[in-house]
Amino acid sequence: MSDAIRLDHVGVAVRSIAAARGFYELMGFEVGAAEEIAHEAVRVAMVPMDGSRVELIEATAEDSVIGRFVARRGEGVHHLAVRVDGVDAEFERLRAAGVRMASENVKVGAGGHRYFFVHPESTGGVLMEVVGE
Amino acid sequence: MSDAIRLDHVGVAVRSIAAARGFYELMGFEVGAAEEIAHEAVRVAMVPMDGSRVELIEATAEDSVIGRFVARRGEGVHHLAVRVDGVDAEFERLRAAGVRMASENVKVGAGGHRYFFVHPESTGGVLMEVVGE
Repeated sequence: MSDAIRLDHVGVAVRSIAAARGFYELMGFEVGAAEEIAHEAVRVAMVPMDGSRVELIEATAEDSVIGRFVARRGEGVHHLAVRVDGVDAEFERLRAAGVRMASENVKVGAGGHRYFFVHPESTGGVLMEVVGE
Repeated sequence: MSDAIRLDHVGVAVRSIAAARGFYELMGFEVGAAEEIAHEAVRVAMVPMDGSRVELIEATAEDSVIGRFVARRGEGVHHLAVRVDGVDAEFERLRAAGVRMASENVKVGAGGHRYFFVHPESTGGVLMEVVGE
């Protein structure tokens, strides 16, 4: 078990951040500027929600993970992310416990954070990102 | 805009709370006992996550909102819920702004809380519950 574990964000795949942001702003949330993450072929805008956040994710290429998701399933929640201490140890611990992984190993993100994905089969249908240092 | 607004919970529709809870417990979360909400034909188990929470939702009848959702789309995130001050005023404010509602009016839950749903068309594909007093 990790010492600190919390809901880090909810990733929502949208066709257009420009179109979706109005609702969240109307609700009273602040929606950050969209930032491009070139190697994932997405644009992302953060919507902070009191310690957690929604990430609006828009594909910049149809043939990308998010582009294919939206084409197949439409807009909607793509993944949940939980933040833990010790991502590498958590990866090994979950795998040893028989959890089905959607990542072959721990990845390193642009900001140096480490993450992996757990397959929806093991989580009740949710693609679950595990993220941390 | 509401004074206080936060991500209240993520509703995850599962086939079996008994089957799904193991993963969340393995991750280090505490999963509450399943409680039956008869008039919605569901069982719900709460997974607190540092101020927010995941709600695991299992249908107790195939011909119910959650039963039909799981039959049609499989397990997965069913809705996000944000908590606001003044649910009734928020309902009127959003409707007046042209937001498409999924509820005809504000409902009252078992514990006395008030809530309504915003249609995914207005939110980037997310069925959005707005809940509060």
